[in-house]
Amino acid sequence: MTDCLFCHIINKEIPSKLVYEDEQVLAFEDIKPQAPVHLLIIPKRHIASLKEAEENDQNLLGYILLAARKIARDKGLAESGFRLVINTGPDAGQEVYHLHVHLLGGRGLGWPPG
Amino acid sequence: MTDCLFCHIINKEIPSKLVYEDEQVLAFEDIKPQAPVHLLIIPKRHIASLKEAEENDQNLLGYILLAARKIARDKGLAESGFRLVINTGPDAGQEVYHLHVHLLGGRGLGWPPG
Repeated sequence: MTDCLFCHIINKEIPSKLVYEDEQVLAFEDIKPQAPVHLLIIPKRHIASLKEAEENDQNLLGYILLAARKIARDKGLAESGFRLVINTGPDAGQEVYHLHVHLLGGRGLGWPPG
Repeated sequence: MTDCLFCHIINKEIPSKLVYEDEQVLAFEDIKPQAPVHLLIIPKRHIASLKEAEENDQNLLGYILLAARKIARDKGLAESGFRLVINTGPDAGQEVYHLHVHLLGGRGLGWPPG
């Protein structure tokens, strides 16, 4: 996906503040942070959004959530807490069409969530 | 988990506005909706939060996200979009300690997400 910003980040063609990487996922700092900790966790395989995820992506989707949990713990958020947000499509304000999970923490987060 | 509100809902001991049910998950309307569509998707098996999820919950976690996607589609949100939110712990405002995914849609959702 040569026109995908996040694929460029995965391929290290565009720099990012990397926080975590393994064979399946990458995590980096959001460039417009909305909380003291605001990271994006993305699959290395290009999936445009949750809408485009398929039944056989079930393992990968679960892996992303477990990775988010691990990263939150590494960032010291296990006790204070954290919020995960997945935006799909225009009403949710999805800006980059490569599936990503926002991880926010380090402050009290309000309600409603947008 | 006799003291868990959502386990009581799963067991139909407390009524809810049920939207979807299968062997692994249940979805029902949030009692304090923050959007025209605001549902909670929960696993039938009691997991207190994402913090307490274990490695072998990977399949279930992926299943919950795929179920959320399917329910969003059934609610007519595939094109307009939707937001999923998972709150873990106090800073995120988690109120019920049974893992749940908020599904919000039917209006433009602001940023930051709380």
